[in-house]
Amino acid sequence: MSQPGDFTVDATDGAARACTLETAHGTVQTPVFMPVGTLGTVKGIDPRELTEIGTQILLGNTYHLHLKPGEELIAELGGLHRFMAWDGPILTDSGGFQVFSLAHTRTIDDDGVTFRSVYDGSAVRLRPEDAMRVQELLGSDIAMCFDEVPKPDAPLQHLAAAVERTTRWAERCKASPAASGQLRFGIVQGGVDEALRARSAKDIIDIGFDGYAIGGLAVGEERDDMFRVTKSTADLLPTDRPRYFMGIGDPEGILRVIAAGVDMFDCVLPTRLGRTGAAMTSAGRLNLRNATFARDDRPLDELCACSTCTRFSRAYIRHLVAQKEILGMRLLSVHNMAFLLALTTSAREAIVEQRFDDFLAGALERLKTGSD
Amino acid sequence: MSQPGDFTVDATDGAARACTLETAHGTVQTPVFMPVGTLGTVKGIDPRELTEIGTQILLGNTYHLHLKPGEELIAELGGLHRFMAWDGPILTDSGGFQVFSLAHTRTIDDDGVTFRSVYDGSAVRLRPEDAMRVQELLGSDIAMCFDEVPKPDAPLQHLAAAVERTTRWAERCKASPAASGQLRFGIVQGGVDEALRARSAKDIIDIGFDGYAIGGLAVGEERDDMFRVTKSTADLLPTDRPRYFMGIGDPEGILRVIAAGVDMFDCVLPTRLGRTGAAMTSAGRLNLRNATFARDDRPLDELCACSTCTRFSRAYIRHLVAQKEILGMRLLSVHNMAFLLALTTSAREAIVEQRFDDFLAGALERLKTGSD
Repeated sequence: MSQPGDFTVDATDGAARACTLETAHGTVQTPVFMPVGTLGTVKGIDPRELTEIGTQILLGNTYHLHLKPGEELIAELGGLHRFMAWDGPILTDSGGFQVFSLAHTRTIDDDGVTFRSVYDGSAVRLRPEDAMRVQELLGSDIAMCFDEVPKPDAPLQHLAAAVERTTRWAERCKASPAASGQLRFGIVQGGVDEALRARSAKDIIDIGFDGYAIGGLAVGEERDDMFRVTKSTADLLPTDRPRYFMGIGDPEGILRVIAAGVDMFDCVLPTRLGRTGAAMTSAGRLNLRNATFARDDRPLDELCACSTCTRFSRAYIRHLVAQKEILGMRLLSVHNMAFLLALTTSAREAIVEQRFDDFLAGALERLKTGSD
Repeated sequence: MSQPGDFTVDATDGAARACTLETAHGTVQTPVFMPVGTLGTVKGIDPRELTEIGTQILLGNTYHLHLKPGEELIAELGGLHRFMAWDGPILTDSGGFQVFSLAHTRTIDDDGVTFRSVYDGSAVRLRPEDAMRVQELLGSDIAMCFDEVPKPDAPLQHLAAAVERTTRWAERCKASPAASGQLRFGIVQGGVDEALRARSAKDIIDIGFDGYAIGGLAVGEERDDMFRVTKSTADLLPTDRPRYFMGIGDPEGILRVIAAGVDMFDCVLPTRLGRTGAAMTSAGRLNLRNATFARDDRPLDELCACSTCTRFSRAYIRHLVAQKEILGMRLLSVHNMAFLLALTTSAREAIVEQRFDDFLAGALERLKTGSD
């Protein structure tokens, strides 16, 4: 009988891994892309559609759900799974990233952070214990530690202080109550400084968590630095625990972090692009606002088997986008998500079949061919 | 072997009818509500969802599709059915109603109408032959004649002139080419003047069409006048042809026009309400913006079996509406449409079982009970 937290490495190919993680709401096979359900909804997509396209696990945002509609209300209504009608696994972030990226005015001290709500400007206090309490009440399957996310160009002294604070907060997070069967992931910080990352990784591993995340990347640093630090950090993480890169959703980025040994990743990119008229395809990105698609009878991606591509033409979707029709955003969001999920499924197959290098080279080459 | 236009009256109960109409894309059982796909999409709803909730026939708007993206483009891409991925029957209106209700500046003469596009202000000329040509290229199953729709408070002389012009235009519409298997419906005008309605009905019936519509109502006149004129006009229409009331979508209105002997009706109301946070229920309308729903764990309508009501609470939908999430508009639009379709299916069953009066009285009573 499997238990939440059970983790097996099914195959490796170079640094890339194909693993299986058990959670209280089901099994996750990695590499896995996690659609982001910011406010209890993956924007524009119905949970039934998420199931249809092969979604294994969703991400919920502690920051947003704490403010709207509030974790007490969600708990009263049976928890986040029931509230949003999603029976599968859910990972909640801790709010750390949003506190630091969204809040215009905030004060930070060793005990926690005070910031202004993006919804109504009211003052909100969030300590590590609060972040874990919110996630406990939401009832997620995986809770993330509350961390300090410094700006990518912060001075080394600031980065080091954030690493230290993140470690102390991780200890307090681990000491906080968890929901039944809820796993806890620690977060490694340290900017793009490999020595700091190594120190943070050691600190967090010493505390001991069910999984380990690489945080504070994809926040504006150079892409080469991001991939370099991802690789060096992943190399330091335990092989018998899942590894999560926080916040990457472009196809090339996903493939490269998989190559670095990362198992899990998330991003709002597929739905954000969908709402702004753009499609991710195996041959790169398409802007459906472009008039060149007005009479294009082809699907968004001829290699895609999703419910958008098997039914609708680029011309139709362009028409919907031009007229600001909700269905246009829906069809693009579903396709983009299906595309990323299929990409990661293909990556897993390639790892299992020991041909990941060829798969990676071929996929990256196709992505560069452009839309036409 | 059935042919497009075949029509049988399966049962009557008082003036109410349960009928079957054959079209080139399938069979329609009446009474039937037709969701409106203004610009080639029923706003916010996927064609698969329309099928799931029992949609039999859609309506497309000639005015809008002529302007965006244009009938030539749609024809080039295989016609409206293929363009919007809907294999079932489609009825297209003629644009007459939109020309008269949307155009700020228009000039009308016996040959046709010149108006300004609501999209870019350009001058557009539409004659009866043009309206039929657009519908031929769209490839709809039922094409409507191009009519003149006067304001409800127009003087009698103006109403009479509109009736005469509508008759002359109907003759020209009938003489225009049709798509393969495409049916033609004539439209009766005459405001709320029963004598004018009788004259218009006689004129249009004399020309001879596959079905007959009652147009120019539900445009601002008193409700009692509307129901009175609907009944008196329906009484004059051939019993062996379908009858279509153009533009009614509130539950009470639908039930009353069914009672008057109408078979078909359409309205944007269910999707418009859905996009603005309102739900139609068997106990009346709910405004999900209302804070009283914040902790309400019940479905929108406890009598409804749709995919919204079987999965989501009022509290969740209120949260989505408050946060302007697309999924909130989707779930409400799907529910509202499912509710109206189920209401008309129940009406048909009641007619077939000769208990329509009791059904009508019970449904109208429940609609008045309020939201709680």
